[in-house]
Amino acid sequence: MKIIIDTLGSDKGLEEIVKGTLLALEEVDFIPVFSGPKDLIKNLLPDNLSEDSVEFIDANEKISNDDQPALAIRRKKNSSMVMGLRYLKNGNADGMISAGSTGALLAGATLIIGRIKNVDRAALTIVVPGVKNHTIMLDVGANMDCNVDLIKQFAVMGSCYAKILFEKADPSIALLNIGTEEGKGNSLTKSAYEMLKDEDINFIGNIESRDILDNDADVIVADGFAGNLVLKSVEGVSMTILSLLKESVMSSLRTKIGGALLKPALSGIKGKLDYREHGAAPLLGSQKPVFKAHGSSDSIAIKNGIKEMIKFIEADVINEITEKMRGEE
Amino acid sequence: MKIIIDTLGSDKGLEEIVKGTLLALEEVDFIPVFSGPKDLIKNLLPDNLSEDSVEFIDANEKISNDDQPALAIRRKKNSSMVMGLRYLKNGNADGMISAGSTGALLAGATLIIGRIKNVDRAALTIVVPGVKNHTIMLDVGANMDCNVDLIKQFAVMGSCYAKILFEKADPSIALLNIGTEEGKGNSLTKSAYEMLKDEDINFIGNIESRDILDNDADVIVADGFAGNLVLKSVEGVSMTILSLLKESVMSSLRTKIGGALLKPALSGIKGKLDYREHGAAPLLGSQKPVFKAHGSSDSIAIKNGIKEMIKFIEADVINEITEKMRGEE
Repeated sequence: MKIIIDTLGSDKGLEEIVKGTLLALEEVDFIPVFSGPKDLIKNLLPDNLSEDSVEFIDANEKISNDDQPALAIRRKKNSSMVMGLRYLKNGNADGMISAGSTGALLAGATLIIGRIKNVDRAALTIVVPGVKNHTIMLDVGANMDCNVDLIKQFAVMGSCYAKILFEKADPSIALLNIGTEEGKGNSLTKSAYEMLKDEDINFIGNIESRDILDNDADVIVADGFAGNLVLKSVEGVSMTILSLLKESVMSSLRTKIGGALLKPALSGIKGKLDYREHGAAPLLGSQKPVFKAHGSSDSIAIKNGIKEMIKFIEADVINEITEKMRGEE
Repeated sequence: MKIIIDTLGSDKGLEEIVKGTLLALEEVDFIPVFSGPKDLIKNLLPDNLSEDSVEFIDANEKISNDDQPALAIRRKKNSSMVMGLRYLKNGNADGMISAGSTGALLAGATLIIGRIKNVDRAALTIVVPGVKNHTIMLDVGANMDCNVDLIKQFAVMGSCYAKILFEKADPSIALLNIGTEEGKGNSLTKSAYEMLKDEDINFIGNIESRDILDNDADVIVADGFAGNLVLKSVEGVSMTILSLLKESVMSSLRTKIGGALLKPALSGIKGKLDYREHGAAPLLGSQKPVFKAHGSSDSIAIKNGIKEMIKFIEADVINEITEKMRGEE
């Protein structure tokens, strides 16, 4: 199996991405296709890596977060992202992972790769680490102003992915809303609720954002505006509280000792909520496997992202989505 | 000044509400008008409280969260909430505070009290305790499917309230959105941004939900669906993390000692994020002061809520909003 690794455009730089790939190679079997400055990458690889166990797409242009996404995809033909996506499109590899610009990757997946039939828009997915279980959430920011059809497509695609990721026969699907009762919400969530009830999925009703880290759903569907707001609140509040905690621990000798005694316990909490466990998530709806890693991914996140992508490819989730969506015509 | 205290319908019960009122009486001057079962309340009052320093609205019916809001307001004529709102409407008191059903209080404020001219819908407001400063957020759940006019009205009303609450001449107003740059968001936030730019307020642009506890805005405006989602994520994530922390501390002798040493520091964090500091917030747009306290408010929250309400009444925020909205015809 060949996995394209987009080495440019992440916050932590090319080295961290390469390091993560090498970590993944220790645990799973695949051929990395590094897209980026070939010489630079080659220098980072160990000598014992044989010539035929690695490929390169020599690309020296970078798409950054400041670039206008669709424009960057059209104009930066020599970027690691565009060259990687073209390589994937042409059938030379089985999937691609990138920690670069989310907007550009989405635009690229649509413009270069194309969408699965009957999927109107690809969705940005994330796996939220929770207290009891982990939850796939989509859309978390690709599609503003969704309609009910899109929400339904997210539900079907999320269900297909959850089957593989969580190894469950009939994953539970919830709708992000402002109340748990039927009839709550804005006009979109009210009609989405009605539609999801009738869909051939295990729909368990509404879920409130207060339960986002502690719930029973395998998949939470939302329009991209709402999903993004909630995802970013979770990230922001966690970071604020943990940094307040750190500040408190460092404030005196007494608290430093207390902090030292609590350290393993605190690491446990951080571990429970560690986004790196699921280092990347698919753009669901794309015709080929494209995974987006968080911009600030470190090597562990990249390693885990690659592993989940391989699972995704081996289970042929895209084929299952394609089959399911065929019935939605 | 007379303040109506709705004693029924809160999670912690009548005693906690009365206790909070008595705490407020120790700090500020007002005549409480207790709406609820008179005999029960009387038994909770100290003997030294003179007859003419307290009033009662003898009401024995309770509106609960399970009641359909508008229906409850129409049918439960003898409820503490409806009788309280009628008393306020008739000019017998200066304001009312309730920790009962949010939906019913909103419906009651509209159906019984009425709205300020040119305000299309009253908004549910909350003061979010932040790291740097506190922020008024509205709407946090009263109005689903808002249009830009409503968002503009929220901004004007929020600005008037922030002037008083934060004692600032020109409070800063931000728009809740999925990105900070102009042009980000869904169709509502995109057009709201354009409109707020031209409004006679100190509009500082978009704010992302990740910065909700750590930002420079005095007021954040949002449609009720988005505001509610973000508010509940903040509450939920804070509670999840703090309960994980508590669990960790209790897990061994070592961590218990660590926890004891850190206790003052941890209380500091809880204090910083304590919703009780601003125990209640106004339904902005109502023609008379109506404050909503959190359903689970304890006596401290009620005390602080009453104090902020008195500040709100003394500064005649409603008159200022009325004047401002006159220009919006």
